[in-house]
Order: sequence, then structure tokens, then C-alpha cells
Amino acid sequence: MPVLIDVSGTLLVGDVPTAGAVEALQRLREAGVPFRIITNTSKESRQAIVDRLRKHNFDVRDEEVFTALSATRRLILSRNLRCAFLLRDSVMQDFEDVEQSNPNAVVVGLAPEKFDYAHMNAAFHILFQGGTLIAINKSRYYKTEHGNDLAAGSVVAALEYASGKEATIVGKPSPDFFKLALDDLGSSAADTFMIGDDINDDVAGAQRVGCRGVLVQTGKYTAHVLEQSGVQPDVIAPTFADFVDRFLGGEFAQ
Amino acid sequence: MPVLIDVSGTLLVGDVPTAGAVEALQRLREAGVPFRIITNTSKESRQAIVDRLRKHNFDVRDEEVFTALSATRRLILSRNLRCAFLLRDSVMQDFEDVEQSNPNAVVVGLAPEKFDYAHMNAAFHILFQGGTLIAINKSRYYKTEHGNDLAAGSVVAALEYASGKEATIVGKPSPDFFKLALDDLGSSAADTFMIGDDINDDVAGAQRVGCRGVLVQTGKYTAHVLEQSGVQPDVIAPTFADFVDRFLGGEFAQ
Repeated sequence: MPVLIDVSGTLLVGDVPTAGAVEALQRLREAGVPFRIITNTSKESRQAIVDRLRKHNFDVRDEEVFTALSATRRLILSRNLRCAFLLRDSVMQDFEDVEQSNPNAVVVGLAPEKFDYAHMNAAFHILFQGGTLIAINKSRYYKTEHGNDLAAGSVVAALEYASGKEATIVGKPSPDFFKLALDDLGSSAADTFMIGDDINDDVAGAQRVGCRGVLVQTGKYTAHVLEQSGVQPDVIAPTFADFVDRFLGGEFAQ
Repeated sequence: MPVLIDVSGTLLVGDVPTAGAVEALQRLREAGVPFRIITNTSKESRQAIVDRLRKHNFDVRDEEVFTALSATRRLILSRNLRCAFLLRDSVMQDFEDVEQSNPNAVVVGLAPEKFDYAHMNAAFHILFQGGTLIAINKSRYYKTEHGNDLAAGSVVAALEYASGKEATIVGKPSPDFFKLALDDLGSSAADTFMIGDDINDDVAGAQRVGCRGVLVQTGKYTAHVLEQSGVQPDVIAPTFADFVDRFLGGEFAQ
């Protein structure tokens, strides 16, 4: 039974691995469990995420990591869009071959230095003229070392409201994004567990494509948010490592 | 039969009066028609609006102008809120007696210089800790001399989405705001016309409290937006002055 694994809040909180996560991933690999790491982050290129995971001794291969940014690049090129990017300069290397003149689309990720009136108003003008709105993700907030900070979804919501357009959301909980990783694993949804700290994007999103959703109680998890969500995870585990122990112990085998 | 009159897009577009508007307001006064000018603007204090109208030769008295900013001040004081303000410095004179330390509320108006990540994130933290969200208005965009620019509603929507809280909207289309002006006129809603260029905030909002809604085809009006809205104005007029001519000519008398 394969697993899909979230990064932020699950393997890492801020820049610190969750308890036992490095060893747990290693045990999954040694047990021959197929896995992919799927992340909604819009702050880092795939290479930067892979490098950061390796810096913390996670044993990952480039091709095991699926990012919403690379899925976005694929979508843009397939639709021949000319894009204005509300993205950090540091991830723009992933979009070097995208046309940016005379834009007919706006791409939004987490880019604090571009979340200002001038950038948002310029994006609004493109949408108001008929442009397309693409969101890397629509996260409400994310857990940092010092608390919860506003995520990209806030500006996506701002632009949707002002323009009356609905964004195409590329990352989780988009079914297409989960399917990309499942196709690559060659596994069926019904056999697959998705492990993450976001009750909506990770758990409910995975459940909607037929996976089993595992909620970890790290990262942005709170009992209050779980209760408010109305979502029923298939499994709740204190940490990623705890789930892996139970998983390898055969608790979920049928 | 009294009338309520919007400012931006109706009496003025940008800083230019709509055709014949100055003389039309004068004719209303001379005919003894009771009126109030009600504006959602969060960019200017009431005094600044009155001064600007007078600069363009509109004959208005201070007490004839109702602003969402003054209604907001009243609301804040009545609920003893301590506020963080996303408002232009130039309107802060209206809030000098409001406590700002240790805030338990966020007040949002159009404040381009404060629509940045640091301000929005600080506001989010207050809301996430249980604070109250108050919006001067929730306008999507507004008409300027050079096009349409993003309005305060975008940042209200951003904060609502991230925090999961619904804002209290003080200005139009809030029923309380219309009622304030109606009470002051001592007139019943059924007798009163509301004239404005915003199909939702002006026309639908007024209709919901029982007024008749008049849509002018200046300012942000477009046939497309009207059609999309599904709202049926009681009257559509090319300009404020045109409506006043028909109104004084007895077209709507019963």
C-alpha cells in the first residue's frame, strides 16, 4: 500500500523535522513501501525543497517530490498562457520559459514582498479584462516557528472577490494534483494513504479522489479546526513517525 | 418623496461632476425634496467629502452627508472595541478617541499604502486570536479617471477567507446604514428613492430595506455587470441629472 506525504507541518514544521520523521521515512523505504512527497508550497522551487529535506537527512530522490509549482508550469504551458506572476523571485527559475508580456493570466503563490496594492491592482486589471486566475494553492495560513502566518489563499480570495472570477487551484485539494502523483506511483487511490496536517487540503482532498486520509497532529493541526471542518479522517496520528510505525506494524493491512 | 444619493460614480466620477449634477441637486433643494447624501467611501473623512463637493459647487450642508466612516466610529464606540486600523492616515482624525492598544478588532477601508503583507498578517493574527472584523464597505472596485481600481472589499475578503470570520459591513448595502439616513430624514423606506451606480450596494441594498432603487449609467455602471447581477432596478437613468428631471417632472408620483 503506497503513501503520499505532505511536507510542511508533516515532515517539517518551519525548518525543524517532526519527531522521528527522518527515521520513519527511511523505514518506509526499507520496507519497500512506494511513496511520493507532495507539497503545495509556492515558496520554494522543487530543487530547493529537495535540498532542504536532504539537509535535514531525509533520504529523498528528486523524482519522488511533486510540487504544485511544477504542476502549475505544466498547466501554463499546456494552455499557452502569458502570465503575470505573484510569486517570489526565488521560484521564478521554474517559469523561465513562460511568456510574460501582455499577460492574459495571473498566477498567485505565497509572495509576501508582492502582496501589496500595486501588484494586486495590476493583477485585478488583467482579470477584469478577461484574464485567467491560477492559484498554486489556496491555503489560509501556515504554521511557522512563531505562530500562524497568512498564506497565499488570502490574496487568491481577494482577487476572486474583486474580479468575480474563480481561480483554478493547482495544488491540493485539486483532484488533478493527487492523480498526478498516483499515476506516477502506478497505484490506485483506494490502496493509497495521504498523510498531512491540513484537514481540508490533505485529508478531505485525498478522500475526494478515493484515498484514505491521515491527519497528523503536528503543524497547523488543532482540535478546534478539525471539529469545525466536519471532515472525518480515516486515521488520526500524533506524528508522521507514529503513523508509519502503525502502518508498518500492519494495523491498516486488509 | 425623499431621495438618498450616492457620491462616487453618481455625483462625481473621479474628481469630475457627472453631467448636470450640480444644477440637478440645486433643483431638488429648490423643489423642497428632502435628501441625504450617503457614501461608502473610506478614503475621506466626512469633512473632506463635504469640502470636495462644495469645491465643485454642490450646495450641501454638513448634516446632509452620511458616511460609512462616521457610522463605523459610532459602532466601535458602542461596542467598546480596541481597534487596529487598515485605513488611510488622512481619515484617522475620525477615530482619535478609539483605543488602539492591545486590539481586539480590525477595521478595514481602502488604504493602498497599508495593503501589504505585514499589515494584512498583523490583522490576521488579531482575527485568529478571536478578534472582530469590521469593514467600512466591501466594494469590489471603483471607477477612476483611468479605469477601475481595486477597492477595500478585496482585503476584507482576504481576511475573511484566511480567518474563517465574516466581517460586519458598516456601509451600503447594510440595512442599518440605510436606516440611519432614513431615520434622520424621518421618511419611510417605501417613499424613498436611492440613486447610485452600484447595482449591489446601492440598488439591491436599498431595495432590501424597502426603498426604490435607481441605477445611474455613470461611474462603474456597465450593461454586463447589471445583467450578471440578476438585480432589477426600479428605474434606470443615464445620469443623476436625468433622473432628477424625470422625478421633478412627476414621472414617479403616485
